[in-house]
Amino acid sequence: MTDAIQIVLAKRPEGDVTADCFREETVALPALTDGQLLIRSRFLSLDPYMRPRMTEMRSYTPPFALGQPLTGGSVGEVVDSRNPKFVKGDLVIGMLNWASHTVHDGKGLRKVDAGVPLSAYLGVLGMPSFTAWYGMKHICKPKAGETVFVSAATGAVGQVAGQLARLAGAKVVGCAGDEDKCVWAVREAGYDACFNHRTERDYGAVLDKLCPQGIDADFENVGGRLFHAVFERMTNFGRIAFCGAISEYQDTTPLAGPEKMFGIVQKRLTIQGFIVSDHVALMGDFINDVAPLLPSGKLKSRETVVDGLAKAPQAFMGLLKGENFGKLVVKIS
Amino acid sequence: MTDAIQIVLAKRPEGDVTADCFREETVALPALTDGQLLIRSRFLSLDPYMRPRMTEMRSYTPPFALGQPLTGGSVGEVVDSRNPKFVKGDLVIGMLNWASHTVHDGKGLRKVDAGVPLSAYLGVLGMPSFTAWYGMKHICKPKAGETVFVSAATGAVGQVAGQLARLAGAKVVGCAGDEDKCVWAVREAGYDACFNHRTERDYGAVLDKLCPQGIDADFENVGGRLFHAVFERMTNFGRIAFCGAISEYQDTTPLAGPEKMFGIVQKRLTIQGFIVSDHVALMGDFINDVAPLLPSGKLKSRETVVDGLAKAPQAFMGLLKGENFGKLVVKIS
Repeated sequence: MTDAIQIVLAKRPEGDVTADCFREETVALPALTDGQLLIRSRFLSLDPYMRPRMTEMRSYTPPFALGQPLTGGSVGEVVDSRNPKFVKGDLVIGMLNWASHTVHDGKGLRKVDAGVPLSAYLGVLGMPSFTAWYGMKHICKPKAGETVFVSAATGAVGQVAGQLARLAGAKVVGCAGDEDKCVWAVREAGYDACFNHRTERDYGAVLDKLCPQGIDADFENVGGRLFHAVFERMTNFGRIAFCGAISEYQDTTPLAGPEKMFGIVQKRLTIQGFIVSDHVALMGDFINDVAPLLPSGKLKSRETVVDGLAKAPQAFMGLLKGENFGKLVVKIS
Repeated sequence: MTDAIQIVLAKRPEGDVTADCFREETVALPALTDGQLLIRSRFLSLDPYMRPRMTEMRSYTPPFALGQPLTGGSVGEVVDSRNPKFVKGDLVIGMLNWASHTVHDGKGLRKVDAGVPLSAYLGVLGMPSFTAWYGMKHICKPKAGETVFVSAATGAVGQVAGQLARLAGAKVVGCAGDEDKCVWAVREAGYDACFNHRTERDYGAVLDKLCPQGIDADFENVGGRLFHAVFERMTNFGRIAFCGAISEYQDTTPLAGPEKMFGIVQKRLTIQGFIVSDHVALMGDFINDVAPLLPSGKLKSRETVVDGLAKAPQAFMGLLKGENFGKLVVKIS
């Protein structure tokens, strides 16, 4: 019998997530039944979409249950198996508990190999990067010479989105939450410009300066006032890949949408919301497109690794305030 | 030499269009030069999109020029031609002045025949119907059993949109501005339900009642508060064909968009603005699809015919307040 250390949802947040929303507990895991396997977590991915799941708002994924472990994309190692598809020692990726160990039925798990750093399966070869690829390739469709805007330009998704737009020949402008991120975006990720959304308060003015021809495609991660300014500057036939709205997740009073919705007609905009899990059939295409860009450094990535499950709540709270730099993962030892 | 009676834009409206925005004048038309033709107008189409063109707001079509005739989709008869493609007596459709006669260079004109009532070329066989067909076929894509909402359900565009959705097997709910229109929508156009948006003030409640499964596709003509209520009730993978926003055209203070834009992501909505003139290459497909529905009465249409050019301004002001019933055309004698 194995004990698992796990983090459960102790209460639902109202507004900002606070430490008392989480509780760490140790539980004795039951013996495996046929079909089950026991997985020891190695890396846990922390992602903004988890915030809406902490409340009971109608969302694309069911809310986390109170008193139950939170879950997240994770890489782990099979330590015991009564499932014929997996053997002890297999490395797998899938949804696991925020926990040292998870009992799993094997559904939705995929084997990975140790040829690349395991955390990459949660970032540049995983869901965030796949999200960036889908939104860029299937919605934004940037063409050479167009201007693409990426909010949260250095986040796990944004950093890949921006680089894919650049590789397509577009001019890429982004914003991020501190100067270091902006410098990295331009020097390393090849953005044409990146502004600090915490110090630039007149979003319209800075966008007018950096995107004088308007914005042909917007990869939207942030929402809120920033999105309103972007929306107003979309060009004719502009595309908006609506991926997230992190600035709104912790709002307790809902923000209205942008003014002049008729602009959608005047400018023939396409606004498309998407969730990458609807498109898993394209995972192979994504890997074929993106994996070859990594060894040569054509596609760069940043990650922040937090050491220890106990630090996951604090790291997640920081993520929602933009304190991470690149993909945020928790190393579980 | 021919005199033309024409209506020019005397001043730009602020808020509601008023009678003093128009001025009727008689001008002596110049002699035709090579390539030109003289057309006598028979029917002039009045459409909501003309309102944005009266002001200088950035729009998909350039604004009408002050002191110059307004223009509109029209059917006319060639009375003189120095253009080799047209001869006296040809019936043509195209953009003509709000006028008894227009000197034209022939570009964008299309010949029509007198086999159907000429006003139909401005309605059920013309731009409004083509608009409905494009939005329904290429954006809303209704499937049997889905719920489709059409605002301005009996307008020139809406009446066709609703019927095409019904013919696709969808449940169709609409709204219109008086009881007679609602009765016509249900009895003649086959809407499952149509509510009066002037007497039903709680749009959310009436939509919840009439669309208990939510709205899978919205053909949006109205915008404003009504759109906000529709947006909130879209189902997962919902489609919004954004065609117009007549409720907002005369607003002097811009209305904010709907709250909870993150719903676009959660529900994977597609919102697409469109202008049918971008899709003229599909006109033949539209005619092939829609013309066969007319003789059998599978597709019905209503029109309001106003007699005399002098009445065009008043009729247009009424259109913006929803006083027409179906397609509004002016007969020019």
